This record gives sequence, structure tokens and C-alpha cells, in this order.
Amino acid sequence: MGRIFTKNIKALAKTAASLDETLFHNANGYIGVRGSLEEGVPHDFNTMRGTYINGFYDIVDMKQAENLCNLIEKKETMLNVADTQTIYLTVNGEPFSLLTGDIVKCKRSLDMDEGVTTREVVWKSPKGDKVGINIKRMTSFEELSLFTIEYEVTALSKDAKVMFSSAHIPEVSNYSDASDPRLAAESPKFINLVDSGIWDGTSYALAETTRSGLKVCSMVSHTVSDPKARLCTVRDGNGNMICDVVCDVKKGEKVTLVKYSIFTDSLRFEDPVAAAKEKMSVVMEDGLPYYYNKQRLYLKNYWKNSMLEIHNDARMSEAVSFNMYELLCSSAKDSFGNIAAKGLSGEGYEGHYFWDTEMFVLPYFVLTDPYLARMLLRYRYRTLDKARENARLMGHKKGALFPWRTITGVECSGYFPSGTAQYHIDGDIAYSIINYYLVTGDLDFIKECGEEVLIETARLWLDVGNYVGGTFRINDVTGPDEYTCMVNNNYYTNMVAAYNLRWAVKLYKLLEEKGLAGALKKKIKITEAELKEMSEAADKMYFAPLSKDGVIPQDDSFFDKPKWNIKGTPKDKFPLLLHYHPLHLYRYQVCKQADTVMAFFLFGDMIDKKTQEKSFEYYEEVTTHDSSLSKCAFSVVASKLGMKDKAYKYFGNSAEFDIRNLHDNTQYGVHTANMGGSFMAVVYGFAGLSITEKGISIAPFVPDKWTGYSFKINYMGSRVRIDVTKDNVTVTLEEGNPFTMEIYGRKRKISKTTDVIII
Amino acid sequence: MGRIFTKNIKALAKTAASLDETLFHNANGYIGVRGSLEEGVPHDFNTMRGTYINGFYDIVDMKQAENLCNLIEKKETMLNVADTQTIYLTVNGEPFSLLTGDIVKCKRSLDMDEGVTTREVVWKSPKGDKVGINIKRMTSFEELSLFTIEYEVTALSKDAKVMFSSAHIPEVSNYSDASDPRLAAESPKFINLVDSGIWDGTSYALAETTRSGLKVCSMVSHTVSDPKARLCTVRDGNGNMICDVVCDVKKGEKVTLVKYSIFTDSLRFEDPVAAAKEKMSVVMEDGLPYYYNKQRLYLKNYWKNSMLEIHNDARMSEAVSFNMYELLCSSAKDSFGNIAAKGLSGEGYEGHYFWDTEMFVLPYFVLTDPYLARMLLRYRYRTLDKARENARLMGHKKGALFPWRTITGVECSGYFPSGTAQYHIDGDIAYSIINYYLVTGDLDFIKECGEEVLIETARLWLDVGNYVGGTFRINDVTGPDEYTCMVNNNYYTNMVAAYNLRWAVKLYKLLEEKGLAGALKKKIKITEAELKEMSEAADKMYFAPLSKDGVIPQDDSFFDKPKWNIKGTPKDKFPLLLHYHPLHLYRYQVCKQADTVMAFFLFGDMIDKKTQEKSFEYYEEVTTHDSSLSKCAFSVVASKLGMKDKAYKYFGNSAEFDIRNLHDNTQYGVHTANMGGSFMAVVYGFAGLSITEKGISIAPFVPDKWTGYSFKINYMGSRVRIDVTKDNVTVTLEEGNPFTMEIYGRKRKISKTTDVIII
Repeated sequence: MGRIFTKNIKALAKTAASLDETLFHNANGYIGVRGSLEEGVPHDFNTMRGTYINGFYDIVDMKQAENLCNLIEKKETMLNVADTQTIYLTVNGEPFSLLTGDIVKCKRSLDMDEGVTTREVVWKSPKGDKVGINIKRMTSFEELSLFTIEYEVTALSKDAKVMFSSAHIPEVSNYSDASDPRLAAESPKFINLVDSGIWDGTSYALAETTRSGLKVCSMVSHTVSDPKARLCTVRDGNGNMICDVVCDVKKGEKVTLVKYSIFTDSLRFEDPVAAAKEKMSVVMEDGLPYYYNKQRLYLKNYWKNSMLEIHNDARMSEAVSFNMYELLCSSAKDSFGNIAAKGLSGEGYEGHYFWDTEMFVLPYFVLTDPYLARMLLRYRYRTLDKARENARLMGHKKGALFPWRTITGVECSGYFPSGTAQYHIDGDIAYSIINYYLVTGDLDFIKECGEEVLIETARLWLDVGNYVGGTFRINDVTGPDEYTCMVNNNYYTNMVAAYNLRWAVKLYKLLEEKGLAGALKKKIKITEAELKEMSEAADKMYFAPLSKDGVIPQDDSFFDKPKWNIKGTPKDKFPLLLHYHPLHLYRYQVCKQADTVMAFFLFGDMIDKKTQEKSFEYYEEVTTHDSSLSKCAFSVVASKLGMKDKAYKYFGNSAEFDIRNLHDNTQYGVHTANMGGSFMAVVYGFAGLSITEKGISIAPFVPDKWTGYSFKINYMGSRVRIDVTKDNVTVTLEEGNPFTMEIYGRKRKISKTTDVIII
Repeated sequence: MGRIFTKNIKALAKTAASLDETLFHNANGYIGVRGSLEEGVPHDFNTMRGTYINGFYDIVDMKQAENLCNLIEKKETMLNVADTQTIYLTVNGEPFSLLTGDIVKCKRSLDMDEGVTTREVVWKSPKGDKVGINIKRMTSFEELSLFTIEYEVTALSKDAKVMFSSAHIPEVSNYSDASDPRLAAESPKFINLVDSGIWDGTSYALAETTRSGLKVCSMVSHTVSDPKARLCTVRDGNGNMICDVVCDVKKGEKVTLVKYSIFTDSLRFEDPVAAAKEKMSVVMEDGLPYYYNKQRLYLKNYWKNSMLEIHNDARMSEAVSFNMYELLCSSAKDSFGNIAAKGLSGEGYEGHYFWDTEMFVLPYFVLTDPYLARMLLRYRYRTLDKARENARLMGHKKGALFPWRTITGVECSGYFPSGTAQYHIDGDIAYSIINYYLVTGDLDFIKECGEEVLIETARLWLDVGNYVGGTFRINDVTGPDEYTCMVNNNYYTNMVAAYNLRWAVKLYKLLEEKGLAGALKKKIKITEAELKEMSEAADKMYFAPLSKDGVIPQDDSFFDKPKWNIKGTPKDKFPLLLHYHPLHLYRYQVCKQADTVMAFFLFGDMIDKKTQEKSFEYYEEVTTHDSSLSKCAFSVVASKLGMKDKAYKYFGNSAEFDIRNLHDNTQYGVHTANMGGSFMAVVYGFAGLSITEKGISIAPFVPDKWTGYSFKINYMGSRVRIDVTKDNVTVTLEEGNPFTMEIYGRKRKISKTTDVIII
């Protein structure tokens, strides 16, 4: 197989250096280390040298220009923590740098089977000495606190005096760019050194955040392959700890330095220093090969469940695998964190969690790794009380309103019209809980966490909506499309709200039937009358009438506005949000992303197909896809509507979004939502997967340019592999119990035996 | 007559001290000095000790929580300039303070005929010495740069050694209160001393703003009545200049210190120091009595034109006179300034100019002082280019959009949904230009300034609106009601826009007819086609259909929202804006102020009366009057609709808003808009004044509790006095040419002879 993504570097370019930091970052869902060069780059490269911990944050003031009541004035921000990736190398007195001497070879790779990144360099120094440099980095899935660098130097042209100077820098700052609203505008130092020391060559630092009261411990140990070499760790004047080692390497021989970093934080560990110390001693005893092996096994298991290949398109297969790998790296393995918009690969969007998790990433994990899916949902459950507080802040007498962007569950949106006003996030979270249930059948989770969230979000809809002429209206909210804010009866929102209301009742009744509702009933005092209210609101949900051409209006007044002239807008004016005042955008029919079309993705089976088709074509014309979440939704819906070419066109782009840096902003981090989206485009789109109360069904097609594709999914505890070619569909039960699947409308029993269906 | 407002003070109270600073401030439209106690108050009194210059400002960063495109990130703020009101008094070694010893008498007065404020004190010192203290302050209408304090001390119980220590403090800060969105949240020092000195006992200081590049010169001179006393002016360690003088005063005799302050700024004077020096020498030569006399004459003339009396209600007459006086004090006498929301009486709303000027104050000045009215309109004309820039910033390809709040014409709104989105300000300014023309017939002004504004605002409406099904719509704007933001087809906005469009064409054609349009046509390239477009948009302006009860909807979706339970809301939750998130308020039928009702005030003659009545009653129920601009509009419209009791109820409250501190925030400054509103409530309301193209008409009634009222107005250069009793209406032409006025529907010639109409 060999899932390896490789890049040859001829010369170190400013922009590419930052992009490669993202593409070759290491992360395991707990820690993320950007793939910065160990030896550093000049200041004018403006790279983002960072190490992040999922859920670890500080609080920053976010002054409102006018301080209206209950506007958010503090936000959480993901922190850059200690830099332990810095290693300076000197060969025969010449410092190694890709900017001096000659690069004979430089190749960076991400090995998605081994779970490591590597940099292989052959460097000729300015004086002409040639050395081979191989650097292998890993954030361990076995020990989430562990980050390792294995740094190997081979003397190629003559004997070499090799000197490593490996740094542990506890006090660092966050990246900033005041000109881009998607990045933090200010760059203060958030963590301050509290304690540090060196024990037996192991350095440690305990740093504390400025305002959130959190602590993080970083600990670093080294080993060197040369038994004669002495490691010497000292503290410099800036509080940094430096491990120096000098080795004499004979021509043709090599020396290897291994740097072990352990990160622990006070969110998860009572005493981060003690925990780090314990972990370090275990790690040093086990040794690096042990963790390499564990890493391989972990990923072997991951790829066993998570597989998507395009038969005749290795480049596309690579892109999709890259996306699946990055999702694993981005996703928290506990309920303290979640999936940030940029995962752990960069500081874009300040490490905040959005609806991206529920609507773009969870659909992937639900199908491939229900355990991770459950963790992500548990995170929302853990923050339910904060969502209740947020609802009170917004004036609601009952229910919970999840924040539009957050780390701990507290709303961090500065501009509410395209932030907090996106009430659909409540419906999105409800949707993903229901979806998790439909795929896994895990009623325990519903009983313990899920139903409480469903009820509280349903209650919010009851409080926010009101009846007019017998229909239930939801006014002054913002749908997914951020170019149209604070509107009445946004179609997507009303659809997702109705679904939320309906299922809150349905699952409650199911729990009651099974005698499992008692504790919940007692806890949140649900009454029959309230359940009836919920069903009624769902039944009476208002949807504005179709246009005379049969198109669904995105909201009550969408069609009253003129269409934005997208074709007539110069290319350099996109994304529009960077070039036009929001109020100006609001006055036009122009969508940043799928909104009504997104509803077709979720609820297509409940909506007339002709209407969907007409609407799809209409919204295609007024959508700029300025959001990375847009094209995958268009692709899935195009597939469902049988518009195969369009489906393929939209997919092609979304799958390669980051690996080919198509929007020129992957340097700030990967786009996790889009990565989930590219998987969905194939599995929900091309393969036509649908999982509802009625069961699971597929109706695959193969895009013209492909010969076929294969993927795996988990359903009700069973794993199946599905191979689709132009001629047939093969469904293989790889693990678990047989079940029934509808294929092209016909029910079929999926059993161990391979079942080949001729198309 | 004696227009004197008086307050007896028994003890100095913290809250009252700040309120009295507003009520007894001195201002002349150029400078304003709050009525702070010369001797100061303890820090915990939290008073706002300030001196302001109309239009003098600095620039302050106003960070947006999220920096979306073209959001306003800098604002202008009115500055507190040098403190020259501080005078410490020591009597026989005991410092004078109302907080020590006994207040035998303390009376503060505002004499609106003399144009001075006075404080008369009889004070018994802690040791038992009794002195009389009379302080008279004036900001001169004759010499706008001049502020004077005449400080007289009488030895009552025994001979007294009287020592004055009079300060000139150039470096001061602005007031702040971070908890109130209506006040500045930060209190930096905006002006820095550049130069200062003492010449012949005259101190001067030149200070420069931090960022706007403006300079202000303050200059202070003293005289003392005691020929034996020596004035000694020195500079202290803080850069303050202190004039000390010691006098021996025999029992029963008195000594008087006169302090002259001159303020000049670089907006109006090329060399502020030279200008101040020249002014000071003229002032010192003329002497204080000369300026007292000029002040009296100026006001005599003012009251000759501006008069409103309630025959049997002295208290109400006082309130109305107070309002008219404060309007004169607040209003710029040149086109560099305008009328701030709080005049020159305090720092509330940061000295910004709003629509208040055009819709609430100009209607008063147009009728009483057309010169001042023209100055205020000229200010808008001076800022037209900035309004054009603002329109571009908001994405409009043509036209001008006046800022919602500003000092120099640059938009200073931090929160655009209830700021910049109030596009109706363009219509408001257009309306007031048209109104000025209808009252004065001043076509020269229309030619020189007015029509250019009308055309540019009309162009903006063309650009912001769009046709749907043959009707012209205006989407995503905010009407006057700030509890309902960013809506479609706000009734008030569409009405005022149509009026603007129609009159832009009408007056242009008039200018053309008279051969006066040439220069303008050349300057702004107006075409027949564009004029046609304007007329068409006005004719096709969309108004949402009436409710089934015949009520006009405030906007397209107003009736789709539930009504706010105003009666069920605890009193301490008002104003709602301080207690509820804006998005929550937007979701209800609840109005901060007159919106649709405001349109009835302006355009009542074009709207079906029954519809107005039903709508009026409807909006009464959903309006909280949280804005000080609300009740006067309700009063006028109630009058026009014949709801006399309601008209009186709303008026009563609005007239006494500041003089009785009814909303408990007059301490931050007077509410100029409401002051104009109280005049309108009588003249446009009770007296039923209407001035349209067809001419002038009145149809007065007398509220039950009154026996009658009298007022004066100017119309087409003539001044009439109108006396209304329960039995008759008397209209007297006091000055100018006879004209025709419709009285109760009958045309009558108004000539010198008093014309008594029996009701």
C-alpha cells in the first residue's frame, strides 16, 4: 500500500516553508507540533513555529467597539506551548542551514502507515563538506504526551565533527496577523514560566497561563548513539535549556540524537510535572523503537477501519488518505478537547471548535471510528451547562444554546451576526447525535448524554420560535451562509430545528418504553405537555413558499434581493468577506457556502427531488464557495440528484484543498471540515450512502474518470468493505454480524460471503 | 418676564453635584463649561469637570471584536480642554467648601435673560466666620471665545483676610464610565501641553491633541476690585498656572475677582495663541459690564423670536424656556460644529452629532432662527465629501451616505446594525433641507448647498434599493427604532427616501426653470435619465400591506414576531438595551422609540387618518420610550390625530426631561433632541402647525389643564406671535410682510393688525 506523501525541496522558499510546517506537522489529537525546521529560519520567513495542546487555552480580552448588553468581551485562544523542536547542527564548525551551501537533496515525507514525518537531506556546506541528515519525527498515538525527534547525521565526504545544540524553550508567543479576520490580531505572550530545572540531563519547565489558570509541563530528554559523546544540558540566560553534544563521526558513519519531549497539562493531570516525570521514565525505558512499533500497529488498525481508495487515481487516493490521516491527528482522544477548525496544525481561528466537527467530521468518524465519534459528542455533553448559560445570556428562558466558536464551551464569537446568531449549531449537534445513534444503535449513549442534549436544544427552539398564523417561525437567526445574516426562517435552520424537535421526542419515548428515561426525567423535568409542544412545533414548522420557478428560498426575503454579479466580480475581490462591508453583502443574493443545499444533504430524502434540482441549480449560481465547507456539500447533493459530472467537479477540488494548498491559506493550518467533507463526497455522494431509521442503503456510481473506488464503513458494530467498479458493487462483511443493506433499492443481506452485485 | 431657573441647595449631595454641573453649565455654541464648583469636590463625587469646544476632537482607536471588512475602527471624540473654572477661596485661613462649616444659604440660578449662571452662598466657616459668596459665570454670545467668572466675597461677621487661588489647568482628561454603552469606556488624556507661559499676569497654554493634529489655546487673565491687592501668577510643578491674590476685606464690605478665559482652536484660527492674545486685549479693554450688556441684548433678540409660554403653568413655561435656552447654548454658530446629542453640557455620546439635529432641533431653529438653521445645514454640506467616501466604504457605487454619528463627518459608529445601518439619516437630512426651504423660501441656499445634498442622497437610495415585482425595495437597513435592526422596507425609511427622491427632482427642476442649475449640473453631472429614475423609484416605493387590523407594519416582518411583554417587565429592566442582548430584542415587537409614528409626524398629511390612528394605538403598546426622542414624536402625532389627552400626557413628560432629570441621566448632559421635541409638541402638535408646499396652516387646541399658550414663529421672513386660549386664537404679525395662513382650514391674511379668531 504505502500511504506516503512526499515533497522534494530544491530551495527553501519563504511561503513554502510555512505551508510545509502545516503539511508535515505531527499531531495525535492531544499535541500538535508544526513541521518547522529544527535549525530555524530567518525572521522574515514569518513562519508559525508552534506546539499546541488540544483544549489548552488562555483567555483574551476582546473589546467590543460599542459595549452593548451581553456582547462577548472575552475569548479563549489556543496557546503555543514550549518549543522543543529546535535543534541546531554544526558540522566541522559550519552551522547547518538550507539557506547556505548546497542542497544536494531535500525530501520531506509524511508516512501515514508509520505515523512519522521525515526530512532527508544531503547537504554540502559552504566549505564543501557533505553530510547526510535524516530527521524523523513522531507524536505518539500510544503515549499521547510524547513527541520525538530522531536526528541522524552521516559524514559523507570526510570525517566530521558534529555538534548538536538542542533547545527546550518554555516561553513562546502566539502567531498573529492583524490584517486577516480569520487569525488573531494580537500576539501577546500567554504563558509564563513558573518553574524549570534540569535533573540528570532531563530538562523540565512548568509554565502557567496568564488568565485561565492552566499549567503546562514540558520535559525533554536526549540520547545519542555515540557512546563516547557526552550530553551536557545547561540553562541559558533566557530561561531556555540547551543540550549540547559533540561527536566525531568518521566518513561513511553516522551519529543519531534522539530527543524525547513530554507534554502534560493541568486540565488532564493533577500534577503535570509528576505526570511528565513518570511518563518520561517509562518512555526512556521502552525506547523509541517500541513507540515506532506501537505507532505502526495503531495506524494499521486505523486504516483497517478507515479506508478510501480510488482505483486508477493514486494522486487522488493520496489526497483522500492524507485527509483521513489528518482527521485522526486533529481529533481529541478524550472529551477535554474536540476538533479545532485547523486541527492541531496551526493557529487559524485560534483553535476554536465550530459546527465543523458535527457536520463535517463526525459523519466520517461515526462511520469509521465510533469511539472517537462518541468522544467528540461527549465533549459537547460536558459543555452543556455552559450552553445553558449561553442561552440565558441571549435572553432565553429555557434550553441550551451551544456557542458558535469555543474551546471550553463558552461563546467566543466577537461578531454575533455571523457568530452566536448561527443558532443552527444546536440543530447540528442534535443531528450528529441522532446520526451517531442511527449508525451505531448505541442507546446507552443516548440515555447517558445524548437525549439530554436533544431535549435542551429542542427547548431552545421552543423558546426562540413563535407561532404566526398557525405556523412556527424562527426569526432573526443566521444560517450557515455568513453572507446573509439575521434573517427570518432560514430554510436550513428550520429544517434542522424540526428534526431536532421531532427526534428529541422520539428518542425520549424510546427511552421511556425501555424503562431508561427515569433518571433523565428527574434531572431535567420533562413533561408530556412539553413533548407535545415539541412535536407540534416540528409539525407546524414554517417554510416560505417556493418561488414561481419552484426554488426554495434560503429565507423569507432572500429572493427580494438582487443577485450579486459573481462573474463580473474581479478574481482579486474574493473571498468577498475581505473586500466588502458585511452589510453590503447582506443586501444581495450571494452565498459564502452551501446553506439550502446543505439541508438537501441532510434531509434530501424528505424533500421533493424536482424542487431540490431546481434549487440546487439556483444556489450554484449565487454561491461563491468562499468557505472551505461549501464544495463538498455541493458534491454530495449533486451526487444524490444524479448530477454526476457536477458531483465530480466539486469533489475534485475539495479533496485536494490542503494537500495542494488550493486556497493559498493552508500555511495557517489544515481545513479539517473540508477533509471530512471530501470523504463524505465519495461515501455519501458517489456511493449514495444513506442511514436512516429505515436502515442503511447505498446506490453507488463511478465518476467517468475513475475506474472504481473502495471504502470501508462501520454499521451497527459491523465493518464492511465496499468495492465499486463500473460493472459491479462488491460488499464484503469484514467483521461483525450480518445485516441488511439496501443496494440500488433492493434489500440485501450482508454476510461474510462477498456479495457481488452486477450493475 | 424673568426667565430664571433656580435651585436651593441645603447640602452638597454626590449625585446632585453632577446633575447641577449640567443644569447650570454655561455654553454659547462654541465653548461649553460645566457648572462645576470652583472650589472642587472630593474625588468620590465622580463629577464630570469639563470644558468643551464644539467640533474640537481627537481620534480614538475603537477596536472591533472581529475585524470584518470596512468596520469602523477609529472614532472621533469631543475633548475636555483646559480647566479654567477652578478658584480656591480661603477666608481667614479657612478653605471654603460647601462640605465644611454651615451652608446658611446656597442658591444656584440660571438667568436666561441675562445669559449668566449664579451661585449665591452664605457660608459659616468651621470657626464661625460668616461670608457671602456670589459667583456669576458667563460664556459670551458676543465673543464666543470668552468665558468669565465674577467671584465676589463679602465679609459678613467680621473683617476677613480673603485669599483667592485661581487655577489654569491645561492638561486634563476626559470622563469615562465603562459600564454604560452611552459613555466613553476609556479615559485617556487626549491633549498634551505644547507651550505655556505667563505675560503680564496673563497665563496661556497651547495644547495639542494626540492624533487629530488640532491645537487649542486657553488664556486666562484676572482683575480684582481691591486696588491694594496684588495679583501674582506663577506656574506650579504640574504645569498649571495659579493666580494668587490676598485682600483684606472689612466687615460689611466685599472684594471681587474677575477671571477672563479665552479659548481658541486651530480649526477656526490659524494662530490660536495670537488670536487669543488679541481677543484677550479687546476683552480686557471692554470690561465685563460691556459683555454682560451685549449678552442681555443678544438674548433679548433671541427671545423676541423664540418664545413659548403656557399661560397658567409657570413651571411648564420655565421648562420650555429652559429647553429653548439650552438649544441656543448647544448650537454651533459656525459650520465647523453642529449640535451634539448632549450639546456642550457633557460628554455623553462623546460629543457626536446624530440625526437629532435635523429631526428634532432644526424644526425649532427653522421657525425661530433661520440663520442658525442654515449654519447647521451648512455643516452637513461641508461634510458631503466624507459622506460620499462613507458610501463607497459601504459598497455603494454612487451617492453619499451621511454618518450615523460623527464630529467631522466621518462615521464613528462602532456597532453598525444600530449605527451606520440607519440609512434614514440621509432622508432626515434631505427632509430638513426641504423643510428649511418650505419655511424660509431660501432658494439661494438650495442652489449653493441644498440641492447637491438632495441629489447625492437620492442617488444613494437608487443604489441601495432594488426592484421586486415592479416595486422599489430597500433591504437591510435599520429604522429609527434601534430595537429592530437590519430589516427590509422599514416604513419610516421608505417614506423618507421617497420624499427625498421626489424633492431632489422637484427642486432641481425649479432651479433649472430659474436658470440656477447650471453650476450644479456641471459639478455633479445630473442627467434627465437619472432624474427619471429618481421619480420612478419614489413612485414605486414599496410599503408592506397593512395588517388585517389596518395597522402599518414597521417593516416587512415586524408582525411576524411576538410582542414583548412590556407591562410584565420589571421596572429595573428598563431601558431594555442595558439588560437584554440586542439579538434578543430584535426578535420581538418592541420599539425603543417612535419609528412608524415618526413617519406620521413628518408625512401625516399624506397618510390615511384612520390608518394612522390604528397604527398609533398599536405602536403605543409596543414602545418602551427608552429613547429620549420618543415621547415628543408621540405627542405631536397624538395632537394631529386629535388625541388631545394623550398628546398632553406625552408632552408633559418630554418638556421636563432634563430640568427635572426624569430619566436620571441628565448628569451626563442635556438631551438636546428632546428639547427641540418639546417645542415641536406644542407648536406642531397642540397648535397643529403645518408648513408644506401649499403654505402654512395651524389648527390649535388647548390642553384641558392649560388656559392657553403663546409662541412665535418665523415664516418666509415674517415673524408672527400666536396666542391661543380656549376661546380664541390671535395671530399677530410682529415683523415682516403680510402672508396667508390657513387657520382651522380657512385661509386668512396675516397682517400687522391683530386678527382674533373665535374658536
